[in-house]
Amino acid sequence: MTTSKRVAIIGAGPSGLAQLRAFQSAAAKGEEIPEIVCFEKQDNWGGLWNYTWRTGLDENGEPVHCSMYRYLWSNGPKEGLEFADYSFEEHFGKQIASYPPRAVLFDYIEGRVLKANVRDWIRFSTAVRWIDYNDETGLFKVTVHDHTNDRVYSEEFDHVICASGHFSTPNVPHYEGFETFNGRLVHAHDFRDAREFAGKDILVVGSSYSAEDIGSQCWKYGAKSITSCYRSAPMGFKWPDNWEEKPALVKVDKNTVFFSDGTSREVDAIILCTGYKHFFNFLPDDLRLKTANRLATADLYKGVVYVHNPKMFYLGMQDQWFTFNMFDAQAWWVRDAIMGKIDLSNVTKEQMLADVTERETREEASDDVKYAIRYQADYVKELVAETDYPSFDIDGACEAFFQWKKHKGEDIMAFRNNSYTSVITGTLAPVHHTPWKDALDDSMEAYLRN
Amino acid sequence: MTTSKRVAIIGAGPSGLAQLRAFQSAAAKGEEIPEIVCFEKQDNWGGLWNYTWRTGLDENGEPVHCSMYRYLWSNGPKEGLEFADYSFEEHFGKQIASYPPRAVLFDYIEGRVLKANVRDWIRFSTAVRWIDYNDETGLFKVTVHDHTNDRVYSEEFDHVICASGHFSTPNVPHYEGFETFNGRLVHAHDFRDAREFAGKDILVVGSSYSAEDIGSQCWKYGAKSITSCYRSAPMGFKWPDNWEEKPALVKVDKNTVFFSDGTSREVDAIILCTGYKHFFNFLPDDLRLKTANRLATADLYKGVVYVHNPKMFYLGMQDQWFTFNMFDAQAWWVRDAIMGKIDLSNVTKEQMLADVTERETREEASDDVKYAIRYQADYVKELVAETDYPSFDIDGACEAFFQWKKHKGEDIMAFRNNSYTSVITGTLAPVHHTPWKDALDDSMEAYLRN
Ligand SMILES: Cc1cc2nc3c(=O)[nH]c(=O)nc-3n(C[C@H](O)[C@H](O)[C@H](O)COP(=O)(O)OP(=O)(O)OC[C@H]3O[C@@H](n4cnc5c(N)ncnc54)[C@H](O)[C@@H]3O)c2cc1C
Ligand SMILES: Cc1cc2nc3c(=O)[nH]c(=O)nc-3n(C[C@H](O)[C@H](O)[C@H](O)COP(=O)(O)OP(=O)(O)OC[C@H]3O[C@@H](n4cnc5c(N)ncnc54)[C@H](O)[C@@H]3O)c2cc1C
Repeated sequence: MTTSKRVAIIGAGPSGLAQLRAFQSAAAKGEEIPEIVCFEKQDNWGGLWNYTWRTGLDENGEPVHCSMYRYLWSNGPKEGLEFADYSFEEHFGKQIASYPPRAVLFDYIEGRVLKANVRDWIRFSTAVRWIDYNDETGLFKVTVHDHTNDRVYSEEFDHVICASGHFSTPNVPHYEGFETFNGRLVHAHDFRDAREFAGKDILVVGSSYSAEDIGSQCWKYGAKSITSCYRSAPMGFKWPDNWEEKPALVKVDKNTVFFSDGTSREVDAIILCTGYKHFFNFLPDDLRLKTANRLATADLYKGVVYVHNPKMFYLGMQDQWFTFNMFDAQAWWVRDAIMGKIDLSNVTKEQMLADVTERETREEASDDVKYAIRYQADYVKELVAETDYPSFDIDGACEAFFQWKKHKGEDIMAFRNNSYTSVITGTLAPVHHTPWKDALDDSMEAYLRN
Repeated sequence: MTTSKRVAIIGAGPSGLAQLRAFQSAAAKGEEIPEIVCFEKQDNWGGLWNYTWRTGLDENGEPVHCSMYRYLWSNGPKEGLEFADYSFEEHFGKQIASYPPRAVLFDYIEGRVLKANVRDWIRFSTAVRWIDYNDETGLFKVTVHDHTNDRVYSEEFDHVICASGHFSTPNVPHYEGFETFNGRLVHAHDFRDAREFAGKDILVVGSSYSAEDIGSQCWKYGAKSITSCYRSAPMGFKWPDNWEEKPALVKVDKNTVFFSDGTSREVDAIILCTGYKHFFNFLPDDLRLKTANRLATADLYKGVVYVHNPKMFYLGMQDQWFTFNMFDAQAWWVRDAIMGKIDLSNVTKEQMLADVTERETREEASDDVKYAIRYQADYVKELVAETDYPSFDIDGACEAFFQWKKHKGEDIMAFRNNSYTSVITGTLAPVHHTPWKDALDDSMEAYLRN
């Protein structure tokens, strides 16, 4: 049974899928839910986890969404992201090691929504082109391009939930000499197969997760040398002998790259790990979120309600320690706000803005990593407490993150060999059969052979 | 003086710039012209000729428009594209050789519009997001994203002229094994610096101009071997010893590529020269051109008027033998249609559709290349005759194309060493000081040193 309300969800990545599962779980309890339409521009679900060899523009002319690469393994412990309503043990029939490769996590994400039977709610290969809000009718007009039938059409909705992700539009800086660099110049977004760089000298620009992980991939698959460079501070891990950290890149001349300490190197390739931008090419200014990539996003009450039009919601727009379980907490909360179980009608715009400011101030109170992890844990706790999402040991998940940090500090090329305890089922993960650096086959079959 | 009409032009490539020059030339003769606003998503004019090292998405998150590469030289003789109102001699102060590199042609294109002083009519770094036609008001609402100020806004126009090009959205086929290819896999659209492929074995997929020219680039800059493969017919030129033509690609396994004749090769890189698609992500179905890349486009009366809404025009949507001078002929004609000098009010939709059909039938009457060149020459003649665009020796331009074809047949790596006679000034171009294959420096300074 559905109410007469219509809700549009943009994107069927982990956030959008969490939203589908949230509504489906209410329906399963016999509640009346709105009609849900999820628009997904790719031909399958999974968002970033839906790997493609494609780069640039896809088979339909749309920007390729995927920023993941072959051989990607979870860069945090799976114990920090496990669904409270669908454990790894339920999905795989046994406990698995702690840093699964992409294909394994894709399978896990898919498992829950297959079980929930919500695939029919999704219109695949359908890119959202434009959204307008009509003040008079109080409805959103959502215009989409259905690539299967090469047809553009519009429909009206009471609510829009934007779950389109924010790690797909690369931030690509220019450095002097890029025009005339004679090698391969690529942003992390378009990086795919590390073997392409076997035997090469590569420069990785940046000091974030992408820089660390893409450099590590290239190292693992046989790059001759890795140079990474930072603007503010080195990553500071104990790198292998053929990896050197340098301060800021200054300029490039032919194949020579110059750093701010006056040194230079010859390289075959430059990989820009310079981050991503929140980018919505389907939204007018009155609906368009403008925020930095941080834990307290601008303009989102409770991290999800767009303060300038509270009929519009955003999921997963925060920088992320917590991922799948945070998206769940948000999705359950947004569901309840739409279904009226959480009452937004009494919350004024001023109160919403004050909520945002309070979150920002609290985030800015410390630079400490543990503080940041706890901060986001508190946010997840706050939302979970206000809905029927199964409560779980969020402090325990923090502990997994703290251990992970420690293990990275000990040996950056071996941290993925550790295992942790599930906060959902209480089981300790097995140690993986092969150290990460030697596990060149990262197929699901290979990984599950424990 | 402007009339009260407002005209939006999408794109400031050669076609859009031709349109600006067309209106400006009428204004210079004392005629009242509409208010012109040209929206250009790049930060400079020139369209495809505005080179960038960027690939994928640009600094604003927009798809990179440029499909040109470093070291690109005109692939046809400049005598086939010369502006009738602005000769190469006027621009450079002397006659120049016949196959100018990209930078030289960019300078030439820019010269005319600098002289016309129309730069202020263009809003740069402004991407057209969405266009709607309102039946009641008879106006188009054009919504754009001004990236300089990160602001989305809308304005209304009486006419829209779409000059957004159609060689920027790649057609990227999938072949078995692409997911697991261990080398560099790139579409021509994202190909930039041939030196990256020095010493490499490369596979070029396709048998069009891109395949021919990108293969030749890689050969010139030191690729170890070039293999090209075709679906229907080989290009059939007399290739250098390290270039081999193969029939269709069948599949890829690691670094091995397999062809339909049962042979295989090891390659380091695959470059897909598999063409482009007409793609308009800012248009609803009632305004959106759907056509193959051919000389007689679908749904365009006189090759420019959109039959389903004759207030909307398209420039340069044909496959192209003639380029700059054809865009001029179109732009002058569209200007006159908008200014009422050419009367469209009496032309019924049936007549427009009949015009399209007649053009299609006539194109399909022969497969011969000379026929096709003459067909497009006739089209240019037809439009030029109906406006005040300076008439010129279009048959002479055809002659230059025929010579070009002959010279390619004689020696594909030397055809650019030939020179032809301008149909605008009657002067014979000088022979270039260095054979193309030895001219590694393709800067404007080097090229003009004759
Ligand atoms: C390289 C990389 C590695 C990562 N590794 C990990 C990890 O190991 N562990 C972890 O927990 N997290 C990781 N993440 C974080 C990642 O953000 C989350 O895991 C998760 O994918 C975010 O889910 P999402 O649904 O919010 O966004 P996305 O996964 O980005 O999904 C958004 C969806 O919206 C669709 N979409 C976008 N625009 C449109 C449109 N106009 N019309 C229709 N559909 C549209 C997209 O196609 C996509 O399917 C990683 C991120 C990156 C970039
Ligand atoms: C690799 C290659 C080589 C070529 N070589 C030659 C050659 O040697 N000689 C020759 O004569 N021709 C050549 N061409 C043909 C080329 O099509 C024409 O020379 C010419 O560039 C076409 O001009 P245009 O203005 O129609 O399109 P484009 O040059 O493509 O310009 C379109 C403009 O529209 C803008 N635009 C697109 N979308 C939007 C939007 N949504 N909002 C705002 N602005 C937008 C773009 O940024 C661009 O500036 C070549 C083409 C390619 C791809």
